[in-house]
Amino acid sequence: MSAPSRADCAARDGSDPFADKRSLFALPDGVIYLDGNSLGALPEAVPARLDTVARSQWGRDLITGWSKGWMELPVRLGARIAPLIGARDDEVLAADSTSVNLYKLAAAALDARPGRRKILTQRDNFPTDLYMLEAVAKERGAELSRVPEGEFLDALDDSVALVVLTHVHYKTAAIWDMAAVCAAARAADALSLWDLAHSAGAVPLDLDGAGADLAVGCGYKFLNGGPGAPAFLHVARRLQDTLSTPLAGWMGHAEPLSFAADYTPAPGIARFACGTPPILGLSALDAALDAFDGVDTDALYAKAQALGDLFIGLTEGLPGLSLISPRDAERRGSQVAFAHPQAGAIMARLIARGVIGDHRPPDVLRFGLAPLYNRFADIFDAAAILAEEVRATETALSD
Amino acid sequence: MSAPSRADCAARDGSDPFADKRSLFALPDGVIYLDGNSLGALPEAVPARLDTVARSQWGRDLITGWSKGWMELPVRLGARIAPLIGARDDEVLAADSTSVNLYKLAAAALDARPGRRKILTQRDNFPTDLYMLEAVAKERGAELSRVPEGEFLDALDDSVALVVLTHVHYKTAAIWDMAAVCAAARAADALSLWDLAHSAGAVPLDLDGAGADLAVGCGYKFLNGGPGAPAFLHVARRLQDTLSTPLAGWMGHAEPLSFAADYTPAPGIARFACGTPPILGLSALDAALDAFDGVDTDALYAKAQALGDLFIGLTEGLPGLSLISPRDAERRGSQVAFAHPQAGAIMARLIARGVIGDHRPPDVLRFGLAPLYNRFADIFDAAAILAEEVRATETALSD
Repeated sequence: MSAPSRADCAARDGSDPFADKRSLFALPDGVIYLDGNSLGALPEAVPARLDTVARSQWGRDLITGWSKGWMELPVRLGARIAPLIGARDDEVLAADSTSVNLYKLAAAALDARPGRRKILTQRDNFPTDLYMLEAVAKERGAELSRVPEGEFLDALDDSVALVVLTHVHYKTAAIWDMAAVCAAARAADALSLWDLAHSAGAVPLDLDGAGADLAVGCGYKFLNGGPGAPAFLHVARRLQDTLSTPLAGWMGHAEPLSFAADYTPAPGIARFACGTPPILGLSALDAALDAFDGVDTDALYAKAQALGDLFIGLTEGLPGLSLISPRDAERRGSQVAFAHPQAGAIMARLIARGVIGDHRPPDVLRFGLAPLYNRFADIFDAAAILAEEVRATETALSD
Repeated sequence: MSAPSRADCAARDGSDPFADKRSLFALPDGVIYLDGNSLGALPEAVPARLDTVARSQWGRDLITGWSKGWMELPVRLGARIAPLIGARDDEVLAADSTSVNLYKLAAAALDARPGRRKILTQRDNFPTDLYMLEAVAKERGAELSRVPEGEFLDALDDSVALVVLTHVHYKTAAIWDMAAVCAAARAADALSLWDLAHSAGAVPLDLDGAGADLAVGCGYKFLNGGPGAPAFLHVARRLQDTLSTPLAGWMGHAEPLSFAADYTPAPGIARFACGTPPILGLSALDAALDAFDGVDTDALYAKAQALGDLFIGLTEGLPGLSLISPRDAERRGSQVAFAHPQAGAIMARLIARGVIGDHRPPDVLRFGLAPLYNRFADIFDAAAILAEEVRATETALSD
C-alpha cells in the first residue's frame, strides 16, 4: 500500500464527523498543535464565560454568587465529566489538582485497608504519582512497591491494599487493560485507583463496567480546561460513605455553612471536597466541556487511532527514530511517542517551525492527538517536517 | 460628643487618602457591600487580565506559556503578598486552598517535632482549621487540644509541637498578639502556624518581626482575588529547607521538568508547591493585588478602625443588639460583629435593602470593612438601615 498523499489526508478531513468541532477552538495561524495532551487548546467559549463570571456574577452578585450556582459547580462539573469516563453522575467531583486528589484517595484507601501496608504501582508511572504515593505510604507506615509492567499482575497478592496505575502511560501512550487489573485487584481484595490524566476525553472509559474503585484525572489536557485547570476525582458509589479523606476541609462537611466545630463528612461524593472551590477555573472548565456535547467517545478515539496510525506510517524508517508507543492502535492512547538521541534539539526545531509537541527527557519526542481539532492534513504536514528535521540531524551527524 | 451626621461622614470621605482606590473596583449601584471579608469586590483590572491570559497567553502561546511566566506565578505572587504580611519576598507562595495549605504546613511541623504529639489551637477557631488539624493529628498519632482563648498561653507547655491560631477571629474580629504568642511558642520550643485569612490585606502584620514560623492565608477575602482564589502559605526562611510537605507533588520538585523517578524537594519556598498551578486564578489574583500598590497598611488599618468605631458608635444601644467584637479598635480586625436573637431574619432584610453582610449561625451579624472601597457615608447609611430593622424586629416582637 502506498503512503497516503496530502490530498488523501485532506479528503479524510472532508468526511471527518468531528470537522465542525475545530471551529470551537482558537488555534493560532501557522501552528500545528500536537500538545493537547499536555495543555488543551483554548475553546472559543471560554473567554466569554470568564468575562460573564467575573463581571456579572462576581462583580454584581458578589457574595450571593455562592447561593446562585457556585457552590454546586464541583458536583455539577463532576456529573458532566462522568459520562466521559463511564461513571455515574454522582461518582465524580471537580476539585483541587490531580496530585492533591491522588493524595486524598490513596490515603483514604490505605486507611480503609488497615491490615495491609502495600501500594502497588508501575515502576515508570508519572513522577508526581510516584512522589505522592511514596509520601502517603511513608506517613502511614506503608510501602510503595514499584514494579515493571510485565510483573505487575504477579505482584498483586494479598499484601496489597491499593493498586495505582496511570491508565494511559504519559510517555508511551500504552493502555492498561482496566477491566483485567480491576478483576485481579478485586480477587486480591485490594482497591484500585486510576490516574486518567491521559485518558479522560481521549479514550473510551468504562469505570463502572470495569469495577474500578477510585480515579483521578486532569482538567487541562484533553478536557481543555486551561493551564492548571481544576482536576477531578471519582469514587465508586459503593465506597463513598465508607472512605474518608484526610483533607477534611469545610467544603466536604455535611453542612459547611453551619460552621460546626466538629467534622461530619457529607454523604456521597461531596465529602471528597476540601477548600473553597475555584470558581474562575471551574467555570472555564465548564465552558470547555461544551465541546464534548454530542461527542461519541468511541468515534473520537477511532479518529485518534487513525491520526496516530497515519503519523506512525509516514515516519516509519526514519534514521535514528524509533517508535516507543504501541504500534497496535488498540493498545495506544491518544498520542504517539518516539525515541531519538537528539530528541531535544529536534523538538526545538519543530517548535520553531510551528509544529508543537513535547520533549520528555532524555530522548522522547511526544505528539498529542486531539481529534476535536487536529486534522489528518495537519498530521501529514507535521510528519513531513519531522522527517526533514530527523534527516537534517542525520546529515549533520554524518558530516 | 454628639453622633456624627451623614454630612460629617461625607466630609471624612472627602479627605480619605484611599478615596481614589474605590474607582478600582466594580461595585453595583444601590449596594453597600460589607462582606469584603468573605468575598472581596471585583477589581476592575481583573476581567481584562483574564481575557489577556485566555486569548493571548493560553490561546496563542499554548504550551509555551509555561516558559513565558506561568511557571513563576506562584513564587512571584508570593513575593507580592509578602510585604502585606511582613515577610520576606522568598518566604511566601501562592498555591492551593487555605485548607490544603494548612494541612501541608501542620503536617510538616508535626513531622519536624517527632518527640511531641500535641497541636494546640483555640476552641472556637475557624471550623475548617479545626477539621484539618483534627485529621492531621489523628493520622499522625497526635492530639488536637482545643482550648479557650483565656487558657491558651498556660496550655503552651513542652508537650506542644505546634500552635495554630487564626490571627483575626472570623466571627468576633478579635486579634491575637502574634509577637507574644510566638515568643511563648519559641520558649516552649513549639512551632507557630498562623491563619491569616482575616488579616492579610486588612491589618498590619509583621511575621518576621514577631518570629512567626508558618502561616497560611486566603486570596479571596481582603486580597480580592475572586471566588475560590488561590490561597498562600508562608514558611520562615530558616525553616524552609528542614520542613517537607506530605503533598510531595511534582511542582515542589527541585527539577519538575526532569521527570525524575524520585522526589527531591526544591530548595526554598518552592518545595511547598504540589500540583500544576491554576493560572487563571493566579492571574486574577495578580491583577487584584495591583489595588494594593502604594498602600500603607498602617493607614489602611487606621481607616478600618475608624469605620468600625463609626459603625459601633452609631448602633450602640439598639435593643437586642450586642457587640461581640472588641470595642477597643486596637484589638479588632477589619470587621464588626454583633449578636442578635433574630440575626438571620435581620440579615435577610438588610440584604434585601442592599446592605450586604453575613449571618453566621446561630446569632451573629457580621459586617466586613474594606477600606479600599467602603466609605464613611456607606457606614452611616448601613448603620441607619440596621437600626431600622433592629427596631422593626423589636416592635414585631412586642406586638
